[in-house]
Parts: sequence; structure tokens; C-alpha cells
Amino acid sequence: MALIVQKYGGTSVGTTERIKNVAQRVARFKAQGHQVVVVVSAMSGETNRLIGLAKGIQSNPDPREMDVLVATGEQVTIALLSMALMEMGLKAKSYTGAQVRILTDNAFTKARILSIDEENLRRDLNAGYVAVVAGFQGVDERGNITTLGRGGSDTTGVALAAALKADECQIYTDVDGVYTTDPRIVPEARKLKTITFEEMLEMASLGSKVLQIRSVEFAGKYKVKLRVLSSFEEEGEGTLITFEEDAMEQPIISGIAFNRDEAKVTVLGVPDRPGIAYAILGPVAEANIDVDMIIQNVGADGTTTDFTFTVHRNEFAKALGILKAAQGSIGAREVKGDDKITKVSLVGVGMRSHSGIASSMFKTLAAEGINIQMISTSEIKISVVIDEKYLELAVRVLHKAFNLEHAA
Amino acid sequence: MALIVQKYGGTSVGTTERIKNVAQRVARFKAQGHQVVVVVSAMSGETNRLIGLAKGIQSNPDPREMDVLVATGEQVTIALLSMALMEMGLKAKSYTGAQVRILTDNAFTKARILSIDEENLRRDLNAGYVAVVAGFQGVDERGNITTLGRGGSDTTGVALAAALKADECQIYTDVDGVYTTDPRIVPEARKLKTITFEEMLEMASLGSKVLQIRSVEFAGKYKVKLRVLSSFEEEGEGTLITFEEDAMEQPIISGIAFNRDEAKVTVLGVPDRPGIAYAILGPVAEANIDVDMIIQNVGADGTTTDFTFTVHRNEFAKALGILKAAQGSIGAREVKGDDKITKVSLVGVGMRSHSGIASSMFKTLAAEGINIQMISTSEIKISVVIDEKYLELAVRVLHKAFNLEHAA
Repeated sequence: MALIVQKYGGTSVGTTERIKNVAQRVARFKAQGHQVVVVVSAMSGETNRLIGLAKGIQSNPDPREMDVLVATGEQVTIALLSMALMEMGLKAKSYTGAQVRILTDNAFTKARILSIDEENLRRDLNAGYVAVVAGFQGVDERGNITTLGRGGSDTTGVALAAALKADECQIYTDVDGVYTTDPRIVPEARKLKTITFEEMLEMASLGSKVLQIRSVEFAGKYKVKLRVLSSFEEEGEGTLITFEEDAMEQPIISGIAFNRDEAKVTVLGVPDRPGIAYAILGPVAEANIDVDMIIQNVGADGTTTDFTFTVHRNEFAKALGILKAAQGSIGAREVKGDDKITKVSLVGVGMRSHSGIASSMFKTLAAEGINIQMISTSEIKISVVIDEKYLELAVRVLHKAFNLEHAA
Repeated sequence: MALIVQKYGGTSVGTTERIKNVAQRVARFKAQGHQVVVVVSAMSGETNRLIGLAKGIQSNPDPREMDVLVATGEQVTIALLSMALMEMGLKAKSYTGAQVRILTDNAFTKARILSIDEENLRRDLNAGYVAVVAGFQGVDERGNITTLGRGGSDTTGVALAAALKADECQIYTDVDGVYTTDPRIVPEARKLKTITFEEMLEMASLGSKVLQIRSVEFAGKYKVKLRVLSSFEEEGEGTLITFEEDAMEQPIISGIAFNRDEAKVTVLGVPDRPGIAYAILGPVAEANIDVDMIIQNVGADGTTTDFTFTVHRNEFAKALGILKAAQGSIGAREVKGDDKITKVSLVGVGMRSHSGIASSMFKTLAAEGINIQMISTSEIKISVVIDEKYLELAVRVLHKAFNLEHAA
């Protein structure tokens, strides 16, 4: 007998029929003798409907009241799923965030979980109940309703699994696992049976939207065994997210991530002196623009340097404008930009013990005539920025070069 | 400066535009220096939508989960109205039933209020906030969400007014007050400036659906000054529901109520012996059929009697069937019924000190050739059952005979 936390997203509970399907899946796990906690999101579309109502009333909706409003979405789902479980003859009980007591700080609309009181849940589980918990929401110490922000239901699932010391936290979604890369680009892309937390974090931050990055961090921190599965398939093991030390041998490369939303801004010929990076990026940060990659090279003459960074494409025009305005005070020769770029990344913990990965990557791209504009590396990742028109080609040739269609 | 509790029903908050209208009305009271607590229902249609979802999942929805589900309706409204008030520059804060702490018993879907913790509300009111409270809902001592049943938002308003010792509880609805009778039948019907609690209770129980009867009882018990007003009119004093001892002089008759939903069952020639009433009504009560009027007359021969009672028209066939089946064991000569009847009632506390009201009523009806089938009286009410085809005529001639179109 195991204690399993299952999380179902909005699409998986989008209609009463789908809610019944979820109940059937839960019943199968109960029939195997497991204790089950189910965390659910709002029915798909519901959160947006509620936000639409709010925006029809207040141009910039009050965050506290926004949380009171959108928290109703998950509350509807927990009641309906509990009913569906009872209709199948199971004992079930719903919990709002406040009823579990998922204590958060009071940063409305983006609260962080401080603690979870798991006592009531455990008592009900031991009495044979399926506990159905509203994801995405909690309560602050003054009793105000809070929400964890978009995708926060994943975090609720992982946090509950940590608090209950669950054997596994299963995240059900509309994909059946984590792939070596996007199968829409590389049909040979292979579903990974396992991936390490560090790799998953890199994949998530690089644009693979299977799991919310905060929930992965949380799972890593509290050593929660996390599995991604499809809620639309009867069977399937999904992808297990493992701790590096548990794995016998890691593949060198686990996957290829990419991000189409990048744009780059280059500042040419700035004086090579202390404080220049801050002079360039300070005004960008003040405008609340997130910067991704940052590259600085010593210039040819030894007294000036070139500085390049990437931002989200939506903020490209704004960032470029800020730098052009600051060009004089920075003392730059030229400011230019390009929003027709893309970032492609190799991710794999095996890189730590294998040299030559970067050069293999560069060689593969060179053989196709793909010019590399920027390079950035971490311990388990190599990212390159290339012209966006080469995205699909680059991903395909790298997938083949590193033999990702076959399990290591 | 007064402390006012205002309650708005589902129609009054049915759209974002109407919610903004409610905010404007609240703002006018705030501008006059009053403290305001607003109690709201779910947006019209929302509760039925939620019940529909539940019935799509569980044939007989679990009461606890039903309350978790439908309580979201009011939670949506409190958030939206608070936003609308803030958008007008007011300070506002929403409260669910649990957040106020409206403590109820655990009779899910029809809970009763046990106590209200008014401290937080009072602190916020003193700090200049409009407190926006979800009607219809509470929480039991174990933290389960409960609801008070349909129309329970009126009860929430009155209970809050009692707990806060409010100067007035205003119930906003889609009519602008209590009338001497239904203006659709008697165009001269007059809006009452005041009506006593006892009269209001009789009017409500007789089918005038302005206020939920439980909230009127509650207001009477806790001496809450209650006023019924229209949420669709800018001005207007509505109808104030008074305590008899406060009124200088009461009119003899305040209004004429009627109920189209009655049907009667008559049991003829039953032995006139102790226990016969129970023998007849016991099986009816066991079938969960509510009985309204009961009349028993001594028969002509002194050994048998005739027994008549009325039930809701929906349950007429069932009640008649039960009595026909029991006819032999009761020892009745005949069981018959009629569902083409209506009940018309005169209501007025002045009856207590004025004799001759009943005979005036009977004379008026006789003059029109309207036969009276049953009569039932209380201290402040005379009800007659007549053929339903005479309903409009009877109400019109009685309204005129008792001079109700003119204020007393």
C-alpha cells in the first residue's frame, strides 16, 4: 500500500464527463489498496471567465479580491470530483486550501506556501477517504484567501506530497511524459522514462512547458518522487523525475529544448571599464524587463567591448528603445537588435563527466551551415542562439547526432 | 451616522453592470456618513448552473459537497462587488461566511445560524471599510462549509444586523415594497409604508413572496428594523416592517394575500371518536405531505363527522390516493377532492380590537355570489377557500370593501 498524490489540470477536469473519468482512475488506484490524495485545478476556461468578470468591473483588479474570486474555480472542481467518487461508491471528502490549512504568505495572486497542516488529511485517509484538495490556493495567517499564481496547482500537489511524505506525486496532464524534444519537430523524439530534477529544471526554464518550474524546484528540495503522466491514456508509466544519485547511469544528453520567444539587443563599442554592465542593464531592469542570456566580449582594441543580451520578444521594442535612449550616456558606438532569433539548448547531467559535448554540438551545426550568434553554458546545459529560420533543422540534426531516438 | 445592513438578491447583482449600480447605491449611503455592511446572493442563474453540474455527476448530490459547490456563487459576487466599490474610490473588503465566522449547525443545505462573530466586521467598519459579506453561507464548528437553503441570504442580512445591532436592515429586491395585495390583480393596490412583523409573517406564509419567512421570524425575534426596497429605483422608502408596540395606530386590515396552489381533500362520514384526526392525517404526514388548513365539523347525525384539509396542488393526487386507500380502515363513507380551489386571506393586527371583520368579509363575498367552502381564522387573519375561478373577483371586491386603496 502506497500513499499517492495525484494532480489533474484544468483540461483533465474540463467537463463533467472528464471529471467522471478522473474518478474512475482514482478508483483503480484505491482498488489496488493505495491511499489517494487528489489535487485539482479549475475546470478549463473557468479561471479566464472569472478574470474576465473582474476586468469588466475594475481596470486593475484588487489582488486580494482577485484571489477570493478565482479561488472559487478550484472549489467547484473539488465538490464535483468528490461527488463523482461517491457516485462510484467510494468515500470522498473535499478540502479548500483554507480547510487543509495550506498556510501561505499574503502576496495575493502569487503567494508562497509556508506550511501545510496535514493532520486532517491523514486522519481522513486512514479512515478510507479519498481526499480531494483544491490546488492553487491557500490562506494567510489572518484567514485571507490567497492563490499561488498560474500553474500553482502543480505546486500544491508537490507540497502536499512532501507534507504527507507521499510515495509518489503524479502530475496528470495532456501530454504523456517528457520527450527528448518536441515531437512536432522531430517525429523520432522519444519519451524519457526518467529525467533528473536538474535536467527538468533546465528543460522547464528553456521553454518545455510540461511542469511548472516552481513545483519542480519544490519537489527537488523536498525529495518528492514526481511523475508526469497523461490523463487521457488508460495505461502508461509517464516520465519519472529522479534524483541524480538514484540513477545507475545517466545518459549524456537527455533532451533538446528550444525557445522561440527570444530577441537580442547588442551594444557595440562601449568603454571596457568597471560598472559598464550595470550601466547597460540597470535601466532595463528598472523597466521590469527580464534578461535571459548575457554575453560580453573584450573588443579587438582592448579599450572597448561589445555587450549582447536576450529578452522576451514581447519586450524587445521596449528594451531596444531604452538602450538607444541611453546610448549617449553609456558612451556606446552603436545599439542594434534582432528579434528573428531562437535559442536551442542541449540538456544533460552526463555533460558533467563527458567532455567534448560542446564541440560536437558546434560541429553538427557548422556542417549544416548554421551560424552560432551567442553561446551560453551551465554545468548541464549548452545553449546557442541562432537565426530562427534554422530552428527545426538544428533540433533535428542535434537529435540525430546525439542519438536521442534510442535510449542510452 | 447609522450602521446599515443592505442585502441584494441575485437579480440585483445579476450582471457586472448591475453590480456597479449596487456599488453606486452603497456609495451614496457612505457619502451620507453611514457605515454599511452589504450582504449579497449569487448572480442570478449561477446557483442553478452549479446545481445542474452536480446533477450531471451524482443523481442525488452529497449535501456536504453541494454546499462546497454552491457557496462559490456568493463568493464570486462578494469579490466583484468589492472591486466595484474600490473602483469608485471606496475602501471595501469581502468576507465569506467562514471568514466572518457565521457559525451554523451542520445540517448541510439547510443549516441554521448559531452565532456570528462580529468583531472583525466592526473593526473594518470603524476603519472606514464597506464590509461585503457572502449571504446564504456559514461554517460549522469543524470548518465545513454550510448553506442556509434557498433565500438564506435574507436570513444572513437580518442575522448580521442583529449581531451588529444595526440601525436598519434593508432588503433590496425587484419589488419596491409590500403591497395591500398583488397589483397585477388590483391596480389600485397600495404600497404599505409600514406593516407589522406578525402581518408580514402571515402575508409570507400565505404566498406573498417578498421576504423569506425565516428572515422575518429572525428579525422579529431580535428586534431588527427591517425594510424592503427596490434595487432598481433610485429613491423610495419601501416598506418598513415594524413592531406593533411602536406603531401609533394600526389599520384594521393591512393586506389581502392569496394562494393559488391549494387543493382540498374531504373525508365524509367518519366515526366521530377520539383519534380520528390522527387516523386520517397520520398516513399523509408519513408521506411527507404538508397540510395547510384543517377543518372538522360535527355531522348532522351526531355520530359521524366530515373532515377536510388542504395540501399543495403538486401533492393533491398523492394525498387523495393515500386517503382512498385508507378509506376502509378509517371507516369513512366517502373520500373526495378538489384542486380547483384558491385561498384568500385578510391580514391585519387591527382585527384583534375590531369585531365584525369576518362577517363583513363573508357579506362582501356573498354579494358577489361567491360560495365559501372553508373558513380558517387566527388572531390577525381570516382565510377562506373558494372556487379558483372567483380569485380575482374576490380580491378586488375585498380590497374595495375594506378601503385598502386609501391609507388608513
